[in-house]
Amino acid sequence: MRPNIYKFGELIKDVTTHPATKRTVEGHAQIFQAAQDDKYKDLLTTTSSLSKKKINRYLSLIRSPEDMVANVRMKRLMFNLTGTCTGGRCAGFNALNAMWASTYDMDKELGTDYHARLTTWLRHAQEEDITLSGALTDPKGDRSKSPSQQKDPDLSLRIVDETDKNITVRGAKVMICGVAAANELFIMPGTSYREEDKDYAVSFAIPRDIKGLTIVETRRPSDTREQEEGFDIPVDIGGITQAYLLFEDVVIPKERVFMCREYAYAIRAVMNFVAPYRAAIGGCVAGQGDLMIGAAALMARANGLSEKAFREKIIQMIMNNETTFGMGIAAGVLGTSHPSGVWFPDQLLANVNKVHVARLPYDTKRIAQDIAGGIGETGCLPSCQDINDPRYGELLKKYLAANCSGETRAKIARLIEWLTIGAGVPGCMHGGGSPDGAKLMINAKTDVNHYIELAKRLAHIEEDIQVQPRKK
Amino acid sequence: MRPNIYKFGELIKDVTTHPATKRTVEGHAQIFQAAQDDKYKDLLTTTSSLSKKKINRYLSLIRSPEDMVANVRMKRLMFNLTGTCTGGRCAGFNALNAMWASTYDMDKELGTDYHARLTTWLRHAQEEDITLSGALTDPKGDRSKSPSQQKDPDLSLRIVDETDKNITVRGAKVMICGVAAANELFIMPGTSYREEDKDYAVSFAIPRDIKGLTIVETRRPSDTREQEEGFDIPVDIGGITQAYLLFEDVVIPKERVFMCREYAYAIRAVMNFVAPYRAAIGGCVAGQGDLMIGAAALMARANGLSEKAFREKIIQMIMNNETTFGMGIAAGVLGTSHPSGVWFPDQLLANVNKVHVARLPYDTKRIAQDIAGGIGETGCLPSCQDINDPRYGELLKKYLAANCSGETRAKIARLIEWLTIGAGVPGCMHGGGSPDGAKLMINAKTDVNHYIELAKRLAHIEEDIQVQPRKK
Amino acid sequence: MRPNIYKFGELIKDVTTHPATKRTVEGHAQIFQAAQDDKYKDLLTTTSSLSKKKINRYLSLIRSPEDMVANVRMKRLMFNLTGTCTGGRCAGFNALNAMWASTYDMDKELGTDYHARLTTWLRHAQEEDITLSGALTDPKGDRSKSPSQQKDPDLSLRIVDETDKNITVRGAKVMICGVAAANELFIMPGTSYREEDKDYAVSFAIPRDIKGLTIVETRRPSDTREQEEGFDIPVDIGGITQAYLLFEDVVIPKERVFMCREYAYAIRAVMNFVAPYRAAIGGCVAGQGDLMIGAAALMARANGLSEKAFREKIIQMIMNNETTFGMGIAAGVLGTSHPSGVWFPDQLLANVNKVHVARLPYDTKRIAQDIAGGIGETGCLPSCQDINDPRYGELLKKYLAANCSGETRAKIARLIEWLTIGAGVPGCMHGGGSPDGAKLMINAKTDVNHYIELAKRLAHIEEDIQVQPRKK
Amino acid sequence: MRPNIYKFGELIKDVTTHPATKRTVEGHAQIFQAAQDDKYKDLLTTTSSLSKKKINRYLSLIRSPEDMVANVRMKRLMFNLTGTCTGGRCAGFNALNAMWASTYDMDKELGTDYHARLTTWLRHAQEEDITLSGALTDPKGDRSKSPSQQKDPDLSLRIVDETDKNITVRGAKVMICGVAAANELFIMPGTSYREEDKDYAVSFAIPRDIKGLTIVETRRPSDTREQEEGFDIPVDIGGITQAYLLFEDVVIPKERVFMCREYAYAIRAVMNFVAPYRAAIGGCVAGQGDLMIGAAALMARANGLSEKAFREKIIQMIMNNETTFGMGIAAGVLGTSHPSGVWFPDQLLANVNKVHVARLPYDTKRIAQDIAGGIGETGCLPSCQDINDPRYGELLKKYLAANCSGETRAKIARLIEWLTIGAGVPGCMHGGGSPDGAKLMINAKTDVNHYIELAKRLAHIEEDIQVQPRKK
Repeated sequence: MRPNIYKFGELIKDVTTHPATKRTVEGHAQIFQAAQDDKYKDLLTTTSSLSKKKINRYLSLIRSPEDMVANVRMKRLMFNLTGTCTGGRCAGFNALNAMWASTYDMDKELGTDYHARLTTWLRHAQEEDITLSGALTDPKGDRSKSPSQQKDPDLSLRIVDETDKNITVRGAKVMICGVAAANELFIMPGTSYREEDKDYAVSFAIPRDIKGLTIVETRRPSDTREQEEGFDIPVDIGGITQAYLLFEDVVIPKERVFMCREYAYAIRAVMNFVAPYRAAIGGCVAGQGDLMIGAAALMARANGLSEKAFREKIIQMIMNNETTFGMGIAAGVLGTSHPSGVWFPDQLLANVNKVHVARLPYDTKRIAQDIAGGIGETGCLPSCQDINDPRYGELLKKYLAANCSGETRAKIARLIEWLTIGAGVPGCMHGGGSPDGAKLMINAKTDVNHYIELAKRLAHIEEDIQVQPRKK
Repeated sequence: MRPNIYKFGELIKDVTTHPATKRTVEGHAQIFQAAQDDKYKDLLTTTSSLSKKKINRYLSLIRSPEDMVANVRMKRLMFNLTGTCTGGRCAGFNALNAMWASTYDMDKELGTDYHARLTTWLRHAQEEDITLSGALTDPKGDRSKSPSQQKDPDLSLRIVDETDKNITVRGAKVMICGVAAANELFIMPGTSYREEDKDYAVSFAIPRDIKGLTIVETRRPSDTREQEEGFDIPVDIGGITQAYLLFEDVVIPKERVFMCREYAYAIRAVMNFVAPYRAAIGGCVAGQGDLMIGAAALMARANGLSEKAFREKIIQMIMNNETTFGMGIAAGVLGTSHPSGVWFPDQLLANVNKVHVARLPYDTKRIAQDIAGGIGETGCLPSCQDINDPRYGELLKKYLAANCSGETRAKIARLIEWLTIGAGVPGCMHGGGSPDGAKLMINAKTDVNHYIELAKRLAHIEEDIQVQPRKK
Repeated sequence: MRPNIYKFGELIKDVTTHPATKRTVEGHAQIFQAAQDDKYKDLLTTTSSLSKKKINRYLSLIRSPEDMVANVRMKRLMFNLTGTCTGGRCAGFNALNAMWASTYDMDKELGTDYHARLTTWLRHAQEEDITLSGALTDPKGDRSKSPSQQKDPDLSLRIVDETDKNITVRGAKVMICGVAAANELFIMPGTSYREEDKDYAVSFAIPRDIKGLTIVETRRPSDTREQEEGFDIPVDIGGITQAYLLFEDVVIPKERVFMCREYAYAIRAVMNFVAPYRAAIGGCVAGQGDLMIGAAALMARANGLSEKAFREKIIQMIMNNETTFGMGIAAGVLGTSHPSGVWFPDQLLANVNKVHVARLPYDTKRIAQDIAGGIGETGCLPSCQDINDPRYGELLKKYLAANCSGETRAKIARLIEWLTIGAGVPGCMHGGGSPDGAKLMINAKTDVNHYIELAKRLAHIEEDIQVQPRKK
Repeated sequence: MRPNIYKFGELIKDVTTHPATKRTVEGHAQIFQAAQDDKYKDLLTTTSSLSKKKINRYLSLIRSPEDMVANVRMKRLMFNLTGTCTGGRCAGFNALNAMWASTYDMDKELGTDYHARLTTWLRHAQEEDITLSGALTDPKGDRSKSPSQQKDPDLSLRIVDETDKNITVRGAKVMICGVAAANELFIMPGTSYREEDKDYAVSFAIPRDIKGLTIVETRRPSDTREQEEGFDIPVDIGGITQAYLLFEDVVIPKERVFMCREYAYAIRAVMNFVAPYRAAIGGCVAGQGDLMIGAAALMARANGLSEKAFREKIIQMIMNNETTFGMGIAAGVLGTSHPSGVWFPDQLLANVNKVHVARLPYDTKRIAQDIAGGIGETGCLPSCQDINDPRYGELLKKYLAANCSGETRAKIARLIEWLTIGAGVPGCMHGGGSPDGAKLMINAKTDVNHYIELAKRLAHIEEDIQVQPRKK
């Protein structure tokens, strides 16, 4: 592929070997390995509803409650295996499913041919077994203004030209996960649009190295450790990258375009994306917590203490993990089938889970640090380089030793730092949308009047009570 | 039926009319009404796996994830409709399912005929459409001693005699819900037993008015209001009773006995009971919270305020409700099928939910009081009798009026008091076992070593770290 | 005194013997006893700044941080001793201090003579050592409208006539604590008023039995138990009452009037009341929690378990108690001296504490029930009458016995029920104003711009960033 | 001073200019600047009780509640000014006060002359206005064994030789804050010791560059950014370092030794340290939270939103800040005077605050990320170098712009990252000891029997209930 990814001012020639991206590539590679592994292949693969062939689940259509359960489980497993998110796949997985339904609706209601285009593209994607990133988030600019009201019209990605064959887009998608490991990118709207914003209602799939696309990887805490030797990044079989995608008049052939100015469908597409994403993320976050339990218990032992001394705390960690996992399962199971064949989870439960996801893992991290002691928390460990220093390294190891060697204890501490504050863990707060957005959905999906009627029936209250809206 | 229920020193002649029991009877009667109602009958009834006839779901065998989902939903609905638990049915429902599997196992492993007995009894129960209470909890005495170690051997229910035809039992089951509305009682062990305690391993079904059984209803906060006129108990279509069952050498024919000294099976029976109970209670607690949202929002309006002013709080109430509901669904769906045909939910998720159930509804109650204002909280409302007093009642109504009449506002306040502190709401803390018991199960169902291995693999940690148990 | 208190339609002739009020009188009497007790007298009494004589602290002026610390401690002690609030004194105590400053300000700024009147009245009150209730809360009606906008102008207490000698007031004060034990009532505004509401800006002190005043006691959960024998109300040395005060054109001589239409001073008076009240309530709530720790630990022992088994839970209870206590101390200490000599606590910390008070004791109650087991929680204990029934009472006692007699265990259970759900515990939610009101104060007392400037300085951010208010 | 500090294998020649230490030096320098500043000097300085001269508060004896209040306020201010802890002073400040009392006690009870030595040393320290770090934490090794039971006897710092004039010590103190900015180090025991561990009971003060002492700075998340240009470390007027102090047979003259094998006094010294430290840390943590409020509100504005949209969240942040601050004040005020003249805060409240400090700031950080949006949370911002890249930097700035320039918005995001996950914020979890240790103190300082007696008195419970300890 054409090199078009930058970090620290450097053009990354080979994403598989460059320190800034190789861990991400390695983490995504584990998906392919797991798909071959007897232990995991039932979870990682499924039968294509298009080709009837065995395909990677990340490129499948989610067609049943069982598919959603597998989705939640798969995300938990992949975090377990990589120690981080494999974000280059799960957003893409959600995006293609969301647009599967939305293109079906558009074709049916508007007479377009987006669904046929998407079907063709998806067959190709499944056959090639591509890694597909998904991208929704626009820069947005001033949040109090719509895209067309911004001083700079490019602050959300938009169509600047259209011909019979192509569209041309300009703008950016930001904070996009796993792009470095991806073959293709699936772009879709990130919010609702009104008619004056219709140029922003656009969806398409493109190769990662398409002409006119420049990618800048963001920095993360401690990311320069990736350029170092040693265990100060404790994990090398997984990694995370998040990118700014800069579109400078990128031309996209229409057979890869799945929405083009149908602004009324933008929010529906987003909703289609949100529910499965916010359900399944519960599995991802549980997988993260699993590792924190393991790392914290291991450190307790390294300190000479049984993890039983921390039973109440570990139970709370389990509670947190199983709550996001369980809510993901519940949302996934209690859904509805869309006429296009795609199964959508319950919006209310999925959004409740999103709020949990923005709270509980922070508690889990805190407890992990609590159990581990200062060594895992406060930047209290010398660097790997110092631990191996010929002059005083032996002294450091001597004083780091406890119920195991000093080096092992240092590695465990690094893992806990990495998982809790270091940078190995992607954000649970705003990934898949903010918790405030989820609360709006919870509010929208709840009929308070229904509950009021239940209460009135119960207590035999007849009087109709209405509140006048305040005059402004 | 023979009158054998007492409260306040009085023998209750007719449970359907006596103020201490009639609301409970009315609440349970709503189950029969709902089973006839087109809106609810799919949830309240199902097809018997024995007779293939339509039966009440509360007497059915739970044979699939779908049955568990229906169970969780049914409990939510029934709390919505009755404003309280219909405890005379759900423990019985769980007990018969638990013993269905346990009798199957005993017969298979020990060559007994309990399962056949239970099958016969269940056919009869389904045909008669009985209301069946379940009873597990023994008085237990000193918790640091086993039943046979207690000074008084009767502190758990035990077999004191056995003949070819009968067994005779002595002791008590305590805090048993809904007995006043029940036709029969299903008795089963409440904990594990060792060989020296084998007389305590006993299960059977009996008519509520069996000879030798005396029932004393417990008192609840504000229960004397049941003897008053007016709305100070705001609900008359539901009610709760909890009873002490005193067994003075009760003789039970063996065809109604389903366990008789098979002590090793006691804990397995309890476990069979626990998982579906602790899953489904999430629906019950959500139903309780639904009413609190309704009542609190209604009071906000009565105070002249839109419930939108309390959106953040109402969203938290919804979060709490949907979390126990969702975890119940997840536990119910992720289970296993027992060879006897019964479906058992996931123990880990069910027990996580039990801990939630012992926390979240308390938060919901607190928020309901927060929204309602002082009138719904602190015993700040005059009695119905005073509000109707000919001398000063009009003055009270004048000052109670806000964005509705004074009387309506008083009724809403009573409902909130009733739901949150008054006494309409049964305990979520220890019903179905204590949260500490659930935590033991969470601990038992979690393999910390698995998580440790995940962490070690991730960070390439090879050293084996073991902690020596401390010498005492 | 003239009987003017009603409950359940009955005029209470003697508050010291009537079951509805005698416990409240008894609780308040403990204040006088404690003031004589060497252990407590330094806390319960102080030297009058007016007469230099020893007086009851509840009638003193709070003039220093030390006085505030003593106030917080005194409230904790009194809850410890009475098992409930002694609300007939603490609101009065706060009200006289609040008006001490406000009358000083009015006199100085408006040339009135309120402060002199109040000084005279306070000398008399201290000399007579009266019990003084305070009353702020008006019925208010529709919360979206001001008093003069209500359909019924009487929904807040107002001046309906004024002569040289007297004012005449009509309306009500509601949910007023401890009136049954009081000699006098101190009335003051409950909120801010604008000019059109000036008739509502009124403050005065009156005998409890003044002509034209009718008092109706509210009902509380389980209040009819007060008419029973036995231990179902476990406490007889303390009790709580809350009253509706109905003013039917009550005439008040001007020497007892401390505000009369000075509407601009109403909110200042309220603020003067709020800070010490919301600080000191932290002591009250801690005292409540102390008893819950004691009762829960005692029940653990009664169940045969050491309270050490619940150490983590008891530590959380302690945390909750000491947090409201400590925040009360901190708010009390970090205050300012008013020119009138009165010391006012820190508003920000006092209001933060109010929010804690509306959260933490609910957690403490929940934990108390958790430790106690079902017997203390869910209305799971037979009535005292049943436990003493000649026919089956012995059986009940037999089955209630554990690591103590059945009767003792029942008494402990009743105490826990009483403290947590029964009715012995007054509300922490809205007493002294709602937590939402406190949050408004927290917001008002915080200068976000100051924090923004700190952040900008730190990160060398120069750009001025302002948000335009949205157009409506 | 002799260079003896290493990081990344490099000997740091000049701590004031080396990127790894210069921010720490700068932060500590702000203390001296603030001590000259009219706004702050009353807080930062006080009058020496020894010389009666104006001295820096960090070298003063804490002799009154007012001194403790100033201590709490000073720590809040210094975090506000430096954006991090000035750990090179506060532990030293606590240590000298703790040993002031302990040396007094030893001299009085054992006839030693430690207090005189300490007095002489402190006069010198105050005169020189030195920066003094404190060091308690030993490596400890296997936590289930005492120092003398460890395989390696050096795992806690110990006396290996003693002459008339000197002692010689070997071992390490680890995770010591601010050493790079310090002139001297005050060493004291970190835990209790029994007779067999008496060589570990040692306290002394030494120059930072004493012979035989090697210092290795630990690494922190993102610490290599310190070597970069630009704003990716947003703060340059404060910084934190934490060091391993490696003692290779360091010889200390006896006039600088303040404890030498008096093992019974070790735990008392620790307790003397703990209470003021755990009280005052509440101010530090509040200062941290102040900046997070400022940074989050600023980002809201940068995003085009008024911070009013996040009022509920900001109020919770304020609650968290003021709770640790207020509890620090309360603990500080409610203390006791030691015969040596030092004032010690209340242990119970101080330890309750330590537990808060291990919980609440984590919540504050989470909320800051919640308000800020993804840009402040998930490693979602390109590096400063990329933002300034000549090829695509303008594009990045274009897309980062919102209600302010792209560069300003990036700086705010970096500040939030830095304060919440980046590395600017030291740990609140184990600094000053672990929350579990604090809980042990809470438990030890609470007399459950007292609460039991209160409960028994209230409910007239006479029976004595004791639990037999379980046989093992």
